[in-house]
Amino acid sequence: MTPGTLYGVGLGPGDPDLVTRKAARLIGNARVIAYPALAGGDSFARAIAADLIPETAREIVMDVPMTQAREPAQAAYDAGAAAIAEALDSGADVVCLCEGDPFFYGSFMYLHARLADRYTVEVVPGVSSLTACAARAGLPLAARNERVTILPGPLPAEELARRIEGAESVAILKVGRHLAKLRGVIDRLGLLDRAVYVERATLPQERVCPLAEAPDNAPYFSMILVTKGADPWL
Amino acid sequence: MTPGTLYGVGLGPGDPDLVTRKAARLIGNARVIAYPALAGGDSFARAIAADLIPETAREIVMDVPMTQAREPAQAAYDAGAAAIAEALDSGADVVCLCEGDPFFYGSFMYLHARLADRYTVEVVPGVSSLTACAARAGLPLAARNERVTILPGPLPAEELARRIEGAESVAILKVGRHLAKLRGVIDRLGLLDRAVYVERATLPQERVCPLAEAPDNAPYFSMILVTKGADPWL
Repeated sequence: MTPGTLYGVGLGPGDPDLVTRKAARLIGNARVIAYPALAGGDSFARAIAADLIPETAREIVMDVPMTQAREPAQAAYDAGAAAIAEALDSGADVVCLCEGDPFFYGSFMYLHARLADRYTVEVVPGVSSLTACAARAGLPLAARNERVTILPGPLPAEELARRIEGAESVAILKVGRHLAKLRGVIDRLGLLDRAVYVERATLPQERVCPLAEAPDNAPYFSMILVTKGADPWL
Repeated sequence: MTPGTLYGVGLGPGDPDLVTRKAARLIGNARVIAYPALAGGDSFARAIAADLIPETAREIVMDVPMTQAREPAQAAYDAGAAAIAEALDSGADVVCLCEGDPFFYGSFMYLHARLADRYTVEVVPGVSSLTACAARAGLPLAARNERVTILPGPLPAEELARRIEGAESVAILKVGRHLAKLRGVIDRLGLLDRAVYVERATLPQERVCPLAEAPDNAPYFSMILVTKGADPWL
């Protein structure tokens, strides 16, 4: 029996219309799909792809607990990888649904690390939150020889300050409960008027506003963009 | 007469299958499309979208010369913006085709700067070369609290070295004739065995290899990825 192929399929930032044609076709033809879900709760990835999933598809759900400790989440990926391996061994392809892009802060890399040495894995890139937020904010990220720095919000304030200073464009992901700290850092650098807050980009609940007006408690799916580039007119 | 809307539509890295459903629909319904082309030559953006463009669509071609001086290219965008504005004023929507993502080192920002204050502009994000190259190389870009730095290849060697040292994942765009310089910088940092070269990702002529084996003269559409992150298994 030839084992199946594991597809890690990026679904884009949330609007189902931003799914690629390749991802749509793979999902529409899938016999087995897999995806992470908040333990006991919803799956954002499945919600994006909902209109594409065949009724007949078998669904492997990975219940990933949101804890500070890494072990519970890793145990969920261990179990998910085992279930996926079993399906692949039976000859079925498995389509793993990934919000955004599978390799850009995505949990698919945990499955990739567990399975890529034993099975054929194809990663289908998706529209990342990075460019989706820039599009929705109307802010070009980078032109010509400008540098872009991508920073996760949980980093310490001093490190954030040092790195924000050295780049023309900065995207800060995973803002969540770190918003007040991040706003303080950006304000002290004199960049508050160049900073935009984007929440749930491309979804119906999307919000785009100056960082100065952003809520102190941001959702996980939010981003801060700081663009310092010159006017690109010339 | 209500003016039309200008759509800046990201087409992804090259494989027409990586066009989003939204981009495909906008192009398929377009009465007027616009795109850049190398002066007197081909348009990569048009080639990606070729199977979607209606035969009846009017095409506004911006012949952009590849010169060191900026003025000739800027004059091409001036002329393109004027032609697009005329179409918008007549009430037609205009779909501008953009390789990759419109706001990620894309030329659409030059049109955006010229037209966004006078017309409704919607940017439709696309799969960027960044995540497409990572997908094709099988290299996760970033997990958890890792930082990603995006650097254009033409930057001076000293600046590149300083910035590569400070990030876990580095993507170097616009490699082209800078490849030998970039390889030297990465080698001196002791990172040559962590560096992968990707050329024309997702196209039939795609090439992925260790940077050590990359050609000295790389095409413009090539990238170097350096990933220093720990094994993401745990």
